[in-house]
Amino acid sequence: MSEKLNQLKEILGEVTDLRNAGAVLGWDQQTYMPQGGSEARGHQLGTLGKLAQIKFTSDEVGQLLEDLRAEFAGVDPGTDDDAAMLRVVSRDFEKARRVPPEFVVEVAMVSTRAFEAWMEARQKSDFSIFRPHLEKVVELTQRYISFFPPADHPYDTLLDDYEPGMKTADVQAIFDNMRPKQVKLLKQIAAAKQVKDGFLYGKYNEKKMDAFSVEIATKFGYDWTRGRQDRAPHPFCTTFSVNDVRITTRFEKENPTAMLFSTMHETGHALYELGCKQEFDRTPLMGGTSLAIHESQSRMWENLVGRSFAFWEHFYPQFKKLFPAQLDGVSLRTFYKAINKVEPSFIRVNADEATYNMHIMLRLELEIGMVDGSMQVKDLPEIWNDRMNAYLGVTPPNDAQGVLQDMHWAGGSIGYFSTYALGNIVSAQLWEKINKDLPNLDDEIRKGKFDSLLEWLRSKVHVHGRKYDPQDLVKKVTGSKIDSAAYVRYLTKKYSEIYGL
Amino acid sequence: MSEKLNQLKEILGEVTDLRNAGAVLGWDQQTYMPQGGSEARGHQLGTLGKLAQIKFTSDEVGQLLEDLRAEFAGVDPGTDDDAAMLRVVSRDFEKARRVPPEFVVEVAMVSTRAFEAWMEARQKSDFSIFRPHLEKVVELTQRYISFFPPADHPYDTLLDDYEPGMKTADVQAIFDNMRPKQVKLLKQIAAAKQVKDGFLYGKYNEKKMDAFSVEIATKFGYDWTRGRQDRAPHPFCTTFSVNDVRITTRFEKENPTAMLFSTMHETGHALYELGCKQEFDRTPLMGGTSLAIHESQSRMWENLVGRSFAFWEHFYPQFKKLFPAQLDGVSLRTFYKAINKVEPSFIRVNADEATYNMHIMLRLELEIGMVDGSMQVKDLPEIWNDRMNAYLGVTPPNDAQGVLQDMHWAGGSIGYFSTYALGNIVSAQLWEKINKDLPNLDDEIRKGKFDSLLEWLRSKVHVHGRKYDPQDLVKKVTGSKIDSAAYVRYLTKKYSEIYGL
Repeated sequence: MSEKLNQLKEILGEVTDLRNAGAVLGWDQQTYMPQGGSEARGHQLGTLGKLAQIKFTSDEVGQLLEDLRAEFAGVDPGTDDDAAMLRVVSRDFEKARRVPPEFVVEVAMVSTRAFEAWMEARQKSDFSIFRPHLEKVVELTQRYISFFPPADHPYDTLLDDYEPGMKTADVQAIFDNMRPKQVKLLKQIAAAKQVKDGFLYGKYNEKKMDAFSVEIATKFGYDWTRGRQDRAPHPFCTTFSVNDVRITTRFEKENPTAMLFSTMHETGHALYELGCKQEFDRTPLMGGTSLAIHESQSRMWENLVGRSFAFWEHFYPQFKKLFPAQLDGVSLRTFYKAINKVEPSFIRVNADEATYNMHIMLRLELEIGMVDGSMQVKDLPEIWNDRMNAYLGVTPPNDAQGVLQDMHWAGGSIGYFSTYALGNIVSAQLWEKINKDLPNLDDEIRKGKFDSLLEWLRSKVHVHGRKYDPQDLVKKVTGSKIDSAAYVRYLTKKYSEIYGL
Repeated sequence: MSEKLNQLKEILGEVTDLRNAGAVLGWDQQTYMPQGGSEARGHQLGTLGKLAQIKFTSDEVGQLLEDLRAEFAGVDPGTDDDAAMLRVVSRDFEKARRVPPEFVVEVAMVSTRAFEAWMEARQKSDFSIFRPHLEKVVELTQRYISFFPPADHPYDTLLDDYEPGMKTADVQAIFDNMRPKQVKLLKQIAAAKQVKDGFLYGKYNEKKMDAFSVEIATKFGYDWTRGRQDRAPHPFCTTFSVNDVRITTRFEKENPTAMLFSTMHETGHALYELGCKQEFDRTPLMGGTSLAIHESQSRMWENLVGRSFAFWEHFYPQFKKLFPAQLDGVSLRTFYKAINKVEPSFIRVNADEATYNMHIMLRLELEIGMVDGSMQVKDLPEIWNDRMNAYLGVTPPNDAQGVLQDMHWAGGSIGYFSTYALGNIVSAQLWEKINKDLPNLDDEIRKGKFDSLLEWLRSKVHVHGRKYDPQDLVKKVTGSKIDSAAYVRYLTKKYSEIYGL
């Protein structure tokens, strides 16, 4: 093998080590770190980020990439892993060279403080605590965009980091196409008889719920010798290596069963990372290819599997045995309808499948507004509440259940949200293909078996890591690009049955 | 302030960030990391250690130090913090320059694997699992020594890293002076009537014991907004910043009250680090000046406070209320005698104060033997058991309770153990001085008050961080160098009373 390729891989290995070390520090920050650790953690994350950036954007890496691209000219990155690595790294390098290392440190410092402020603001439901931090985040985001050549829309620069190759206009087109169909469906549902779900909001024991979540994750195929689950105020999945991928969850007294779906969701993310080719570990090909593809995995396990009738045919008897008082007289069908109840509500992560995308569209509009300067941070709570009312007909009673509910902006991430809706769309596209390839899948799920589903996902999606770009991967696997048709078909079929439309 | 001083501080800040990040990764490795994470963790720790080493030993740092030493010529490092920082950093720099960065990476990789092997070996009580890893650690230790100029004894090089300025011969002299007095005391105790302690080994509830430990740590002054306690197979204290100092503990069914003293011990370490001057954070002056001084703090809180009669006059009623069945009919005095029972035993961390130093002397001999090649790793279990029998008259029933009990060698640390005995010695020296300065201390402890003790320790010891070398600090605070007289006086008085000698 080329000596230069080895040199490059060694440098990239160290860059990966620094980033993974940063991920460990980030995980600790959100799970166990005492309050006093915050300031130093900012310095530590700043230094790790800066050193990774300096190492990655060095002239040495630039020269190696140039030489290796010449060496690999004509080698197909679609088949050869090294060529794929060069393709992905070259793109990352071109982008990273534009961002000064000091800026990376500043982002880390600001977002560490912003995260702490957000935690406090959310707890006290007081936007004013978070506001100056978010203003700083927006200012940094605008400076970030200024490092790049002008795009069709300034938001394109942000989106491309999460969804390589995707434009703001592409996303808007997909959303514009889907919105009227989803709105029509919501109207039909609103006119139908509402399902009962009061029994979901009784008093459920946290430990039992946790144990049941863990059992589901285990059945899905989560390997506990290569991962673990902890508590965090906002559940997430994080990767320290292909053999150490962790999830977090939370228990909300006022919505106890949400824990189940949160764990399924994060398990879906974790299975994606754990299924990556072992040889990609400690290289830039490790991980998911984009946030939308990642979300397609988490939403598939949470919704297409975890909210399906077949799934609960298997698990409901066991669940009912665990909570006999709470579920007394509740039939399987009643339970199934309840966990799929459609009702406009405040919290995105607890939103049903039919309204979820509306939450995303709202956030996309606010992000675009912050980025292009047409909206001021100080006005966000009001704008948020107005649009919630306009789109979903509900007004959050306070900012904790409104503009303060998500951690993304606090973490410095603007440009992220639309990938959630794209993930829903892709999950349904993949699901149609999977069910063609595995005609007995429904029966298997009914038996609590997920092996062939996981195996399909591993071999078609997970194993590739970042080798293929999202649109190419979806095309390769399903035959068409990202398209909302399958998702609309899925929603329509499911809710027509549930609501008798 | 000097421009060069600022430059140096900025570089040292980043070095500190890298080391503290490594500490977070090490904490996770010993508390929460799933098994699968091990290999990648080795890479991550290796890269962090190497980058810290490269950054710290750069020519740039060398030049800055040279220039600044000239600039600070004549400034007293005993009073000026910057001059003290230059003194400490210059010494660290001279040492670190001798060790190649690749070697640092190798040590991290080897000790990560050795640590995993040790965990398994200890669990299965199978030395053969750990043996090849320990052989590698010894080989690396010998290579480490070879980077330094020949000393009076090769072990001097190791000792100096933990106890700056101390020689193997110094330690042996202190030990040789103390040994006969301690042996004489042990013989007297052996001839006396043994105290009862069976009630300590009943069935105690883990959660209650944990809660009581936490309450003691809180009373001692441990600030939970700047620290936390988790479980680890071998309890330790670790520092990520002056405002994030964490402890770990364990519950052993067969020795349930050990948890209390373990928590007191680690709290003692944590209070030292938390009491360092805030301005020293993210500089090389942050932390404890040596392991012996560190151990003087942990052993003081564990033994001179936590095993004192006055302490239990306050806490015993409460403890008895928590465990009424287990302590039924057990008087305060009986309980006090039981927790101070002298009996030769296998496990160092559970050893009583009168036998503890014998465990250390054994380890010092084995370490010296490994380092100078007079002992082979394969023979260690036998040598260990033979000497345990010779010194304490007991033979461990298996290697888990013998040579495999401590994690130090697995972590790559050889040269560490004698600092434990030195810590005992210093704790008693400080204690005599404290009781002169605070004549009412015993009464305060009897009321569960530790404020003036902590305040004394903070202002005389903690606040200085690494500013003074251990011998200088002890001299400055007590008027004399490290000397075992106070410790022998303390042991003799305490056990004469307990055993009626």
